[in-house]
Amino acid sequence: MMSQRVKVKQILADDRTHYEVTVKGWVRSFRNNQFIAVNDGSTNNNLQVVIDTENTDPALLKRITTGAAISAVGEVIPSLGKGQKVELKATTLEILGDCDPEKYPLQLKNKPSLEYLREIAHLRFRTNTFGAIFRVRHALAFAVHKFFNEQGFVYLHTPIITASDAEGAGEMFRVTTMDLNNLPRTENGEINFKEDFFGKSTNLTVSGQLEGELGAMAFGEIYTFGPTFRAENSNTARHLAEFWMIEPEMAFYELKDNMDLAEAFIKSVIGYVLENNREDLEFLATRLLEEEKQKPQQERSEMGLIEKLEFVLNNEFVRMTYTEAIDILKDSKPNKNKKFQYLIEGWGADLQSEHERYLVEKHFKKPVILTDYPKEIKSFYMKLNEDGKTVRAMDILFPGIGEMVGGSQREEDYDKLVARMKEMHVPVDELSWYLDTRRFGTAPHAGFGVGFERLMLFVTGMTNIRDVIAFPRTPKSAEF
Amino acid sequence: MMSQRVKVKQILADDRTHYEVTVKGWVRSFRNNQFIAVNDGSTNNNLQVVIDTENTDPALLKRITTGAAISAVGEVIPSLGKGQKVELKATTLEILGDCDPEKYPLQLKNKPSLEYLREIAHLRFRTNTFGAIFRVRHALAFAVHKFFNEQGFVYLHTPIITASDAEGAGEMFRVTTMDLNNLPRTENGEINFKEDFFGKSTNLTVSGQLEGELGAMAFGEIYTFGPTFRAENSNTARHLAEFWMIEPEMAFYELKDNMDLAEAFIKSVIGYVLENNREDLEFLATRLLEEEKQKPQQERSEMGLIEKLEFVLNNEFVRMTYTEAIDILKDSKPNKNKKFQYLIEGWGADLQSEHERYLVEKHFKKPVILTDYPKEIKSFYMKLNEDGKTVRAMDILFPGIGEMVGGSQREEDYDKLVARMKEMHVPVDELSWYLDTRRFGTAPHAGFGVGFERLMLFVTGMTNIRDVIAFPRTPKSAEF
Repeated sequence: MMSQRVKVKQILADDRTHYEVTVKGWVRSFRNNQFIAVNDGSTNNNLQVVIDTENTDPALLKRITTGAAISAVGEVIPSLGKGQKVELKATTLEILGDCDPEKYPLQLKNKPSLEYLREIAHLRFRTNTFGAIFRVRHALAFAVHKFFNEQGFVYLHTPIITASDAEGAGEMFRVTTMDLNNLPRTENGEINFKEDFFGKSTNLTVSGQLEGELGAMAFGEIYTFGPTFRAENSNTARHLAEFWMIEPEMAFYELKDNMDLAEAFIKSVIGYVLENNREDLEFLATRLLEEEKQKPQQERSEMGLIEKLEFVLNNEFVRMTYTEAIDILKDSKPNKNKKFQYLIEGWGADLQSEHERYLVEKHFKKPVILTDYPKEIKSFYMKLNEDGKTVRAMDILFPGIGEMVGGSQREEDYDKLVARMKEMHVPVDELSWYLDTRRFGTAPHAGFGVGFERLMLFVTGMTNIRDVIAFPRTPKSAEF
Repeated sequence: MMSQRVKVKQILADDRTHYEVTVKGWVRSFRNNQFIAVNDGSTNNNLQVVIDTENTDPALLKRITTGAAISAVGEVIPSLGKGQKVELKATTLEILGDCDPEKYPLQLKNKPSLEYLREIAHLRFRTNTFGAIFRVRHALAFAVHKFFNEQGFVYLHTPIITASDAEGAGEMFRVTTMDLNNLPRTENGEINFKEDFFGKSTNLTVSGQLEGELGAMAFGEIYTFGPTFRAENSNTARHLAEFWMIEPEMAFYELKDNMDLAEAFIKSVIGYVLENNREDLEFLATRLLEEEKQKPQQERSEMGLIEKLEFVLNNEFVRMTYTEAIDILKDSKPNKNKKFQYLIEGWGADLQSEHERYLVEKHFKKPVILTDYPKEIKSFYMKLNEDGKTVRAMDILFPGIGEMVGGSQREEDYDKLVARMKEMHVPVDELSWYLDTRRFGTAPHAGFGVGFERLMLFVTGMTNIRDVIAFPRTPKSAEF
């Protein structure tokens, strides 16, 4: 029992044989009373542990069931079986934790559905699919930090609890410590938020952008990567009430610099996962292929998962203005044949998912960066173009995903920004601190936001956003 | 204007001279109508930009004020002045954003106090002190991810909004979308949380540990790094309502493995910052020295900041049991002379800050890992020792900080865990998902939590926790 514990991933990657190790993990299967497939979470691949059946207590043999935790000591030897180069010839086997096959939810004769696994999200990490997904999620998160660190960005933790609803990005969750059965009231009978924990009404953040800009105007380049919240009552495969967002914000960047950074960023993190999580991606690619077989031919992807990731990596994103996109859409078949639910009549229309999908999936067949949207359909902080009609916004649209990135050059001119805020009824007084960036040493700057789970959908090929976050929060559901 | 923008840090680190660059940043000072100290946030060090005063428009000269954003093009040349090797001989200077010296809060004759800077937290990043602090924070956060990634841990995003108050770690913030002026009621007149967004009463998480354990029992080793919350009404230099925590959780680890990992982790991240942020640490060390000069001799630190970090890096932490610590404390001078506020009468006492400080600051003068605490003063999930009295807890105590790390081996035995939960009135039914880890393939496992801001206090030498997080949330305060 003195040999060192080595992880399965390392044993399988090692060319050596004939050395002693200890392996600890969980039984994935037990064949012929002799071959145990052991998984320890370090990789989707199992280590085959071969036991000396004749000299093993039959009572012990019975306890080797799917899901049981075991510790095995033995020699790593070349494997005669198919599918693995090495296996472990066990000299000692210990059951660390039993797993009753009658009760174990993953001990099903039929492959559990993704829907069923969502209900047992606390156990689904133990399946190959979710093992691969969450190792990819780890790698993708690490790639985010690595990219920005190498570029000299400062990681800024913007606040989660905030008193401002300034961005107007969506409905918010209230945060309070008041006793709901005995709410403090003012003399007028209104709820007295001065008595609440923070002395005012507070919510969960919908974006760290405004605070991020404060950092950018000191450090030059910052990024956030943290949870954000939307209290939208949308029960769809695309919406979460709690999700993670990446928001870089850069001083001295104009719109083109912003686009260059966003494209480089996405390519960098996809490249990292392709390089570091090949096995997981291959597993997910096969899964996707199986899933697509259920679909009619014309709905299937033209490319496999890895092919699609490599395509994005190796091709420049299309860059065009909103105005150019409207021209394409107006002349498009589905618009002429009235197949769009929302027909494009002309300039000014807000693009719907069907239009974005047409552009990226049918027309260009690659990621598209749309810029210079009408100011009416974008946020107050975006820089007004000289035409007075459009703002320096950019949205990056991805096949199968829609909007992956939303960003803009920010309005750095104090007077123009205040005028825009008044037009859009954004409270100027409450955002005095934000306006200070324009009062004191303002400069051109830009930034964007990336929904981490949308990136995950694209990279893993999963189609329901609840399958790429560990414990999804959605209307009427906050389990675990 | 065609030369490339280069960051100040890079220009100062480059041995080359006589090349053209564009520099963009903010004016820190302007001397003799000729020398501009420019900072762009990439380093605390400024680049000296020398302008041709005689050929510069006097109206432009007047606009070169502290805080103004500028763009300068010129040649990097060897500097004749003291304090820098190179400087920029500007051929073009542009003011990107003015900064009115009459109104700029950082344009003070006297050095602004830390208290004052807390009130203008949106601008304090622009000072040398907070520039250094938040670059160190970035580096420390990156070092956390780098360490765990290299060890094969999976970064797990545990939920922020949670329906369980199971850990009992402290008072919680309620999260709700109910209309407080029109709360839904059941027939009995009670608040009907079924009508709330998640269909039940929800709070902000106090710890990701329980969910982390779910991940560890599949991936082997996971860590979390995210915001956590305490609705404690404590207005001290040590408490935040919102703070970031790092929580690794490892299957097949016992208490000793847990201690080894925690010690290696702390040393690794401190080593990273020493290697990568030397200039920032040197600045903070000087700042601390200045601050300590205000204190009476006996209250000053024996070591400087960098010396202290290197000391931790190069010395083994003391490891001892709670029982041994009680013996030391009982026999200590302050206990015998009744100088402790809470006198140590014998075994079982909860250690107060004064006792922890005595152990690490007076007795051992280094970090101390205390283990095997009485079960009565620790959480339900900690593994019971064979003595039936103590649990396999570990706290790492740091000089000047107190508890930096709190962890334990977890109780992996289903029956023992349930018995302990019942004894401590922890709702067994609500934690059925947690107990599944003990039902299905349980294994010895362990984990710990590190308060990121406490680590920041130690590494930066700052004494108020509000100075090491960008936008502190404390009772009656949620600005920006």
